[in-house]
Amino acid sequence: VIVYERPIRFDEVDPAGIVFFARYANFAHEAVENFFAVLDGGYAALIQKRRIGLPIVHLEADFRAPLRYGDSLRIESRCDNVGTSSASFAHDIRDALGGKLAATVRHVVVAVDLDTFESRPLPDDVRAALEAHR
Amino acid sequence: VIVYERPIRFDEVDPAGIVFFARYANFAHEAVENFFAVLDGGYAALIQKRRIGLPIVHLEADFRAPLRYGDSLRIESRCDNVGTSSASFAHDIRDALGGKLAATVRHVVVAVDLDTFESRPLPDDVRAALEAHR
Amino acid sequence: VIVYERPIRFDEVDPAGIVFFARYANFAHEAVENFFAVLDGGYAALIQKRRIGLPIVHLEADFRAPLRYGDSLRIESRCDNVGTSSASFAHDIRDALGGKLAATVRHVVVAVDLDTFESRPLPDDVRAALEAHR
Amino acid sequence: VIVYERPIRFDEVDPAGIVFFARYANFAHEAVENFFAVLDGGYAALIQKRRIGLPIVHLEADFRAPLRYGDSLRIESRCDNVGTSSASFAHDIRDALGGKLAATVRHVVVAVDLDTFESRPLPDDVRAALEAHR
Repeated sequence: VIVYERPIRFDEVDPAGIVFFARYANFAHEAVENFFAVLDGGYAALIQKRRIGLPIVHLEADFRAPLRYGDSLRIESRCDNVGTSSASFAHDIRDALGGKLAATVRHVVVAVDLDTFESRPLPDDVRAALEAHR
Repeated sequence: VIVYERPIRFDEVDPAGIVFFARYANFAHEAVENFFAVLDGGYAALIQKRRIGLPIVHLEADFRAPLRYGDSLRIESRCDNVGTSSASFAHDIRDALGGKLAATVRHVVVAVDLDTFESRPLPDDVRAALEAHR
Repeated sequence: VIVYERPIRFDEVDPAGIVFFARYANFAHEAVENFFAVLDGGYAALIQKRRIGLPIVHLEADFRAPLRYGDSLRIESRCDNVGTSSASFAHDIRDALGGKLAATVRHVVVAVDLDTFESRPLPDDVRAALEAHR
Repeated sequence: VIVYERPIRFDEVDPAGIVFFARYANFAHEAVENFFAVLDGGYAALIQKRRIGLPIVHLEADFRAPLRYGDSLRIESRCDNVGTSSASFAHDIRDALGGKLAATVRHVVVAVDLDTFESRPLPDDVRAALEAHR
């Protein structure tokens, strides 16, 4: 499990006073970037230099309790499954202060060659980075 | 079915050159706002004057083909189910030009009193606006 | 002058109930994309196929009156100046219903080769597209 | 001077491969929130409980060098001027690794009563928080 915390920003809150639901997908992506910090150049080099992307093919989220401006995020992320060319992530997104569960997000990514968008096997170093947090 | 079309904007595309997946949740919300255009003051008045919100409690999306900068969105939205205090929406998001399916998004909302965040029955006019597009 | 209108979206409004100020820069970019609609493939082809970008080098905005959720944008855009490799834009952003001025945004762009980020002259068709709305 | 660092996120980078210019306004707001960390409940309580807002009335930015995905932000912020009801901020936004200046952002805020949007004097604790970083 990788744990990631940060304050909620003003521009992430909607006019109803709660974190806008689409932002949880951004949070999940932000958390996934942390899995790749062990790679040389991180996720950025994977995309820009090696031209390998991990687009999302499936996303599911359940929202339990609203987060508000003034709260901090605590995201607990794990990799649930690593296949030949795909991987599944699960995130518990909590109010960092009290620990209350705000939402769960699950998503599946597939490795692609960014020049052709054809699927390809997960590179060994990416696979190892993910297996480390199953 | 409500059909909604608009160009993809520059700031919706990620450095891999495709529409960022979290944006599809924004698109779904944007499409849902169209259901409420028949209400006096639209969704804005529902939230700001009547203090009734429709937060998302469940979200699911499947991504089939990437959309790129230069493409236009075509979103075909329907209300699949209307309960006492909840409703379900389904969206087919397509490349407007060729009609290719890019993603399907489904989500469930629950009516709440925005001052207490307690669930409450869907108001009759909201229910009628949704039933019109089942 | 190019006039562009659209409703303000829910996710553009901040928890104080008004359009978040940074969004006006997004609006200005959205309006500028309209200048290039006459080019084959629009702004997208300019960037993706011809690898010519128009990054902003200077931005100024004055905010006069807040816009709120439920309002529509009316953006009146003109190109103030066209140089060898740069151009200046000015936008009046209004409440579409009453016409009240919400903000003015001015910005300067410079043509660059996107592979080197070196400045380059404005291509003739881009120049013509801009001169048409001085 | 308040110094604030964080990585650039994937969703802040545009299809031309650089941080989208409008994001620098978001960065400036994010940096300003740090000035209010000393207040009880921070900027969130100022807005939500005391109903005092600090909307931007003027914004200026100069862009010197692009930031890219994989870079980290380093924002050096100071309060340049504190008036009766207004204050001015200046931010140097740098590549955290090499220190290269990417952009300067200056903006002016005015204190308002959020229920009326009438301007009002800066509260004493807000004034003190700002004076601490002139």
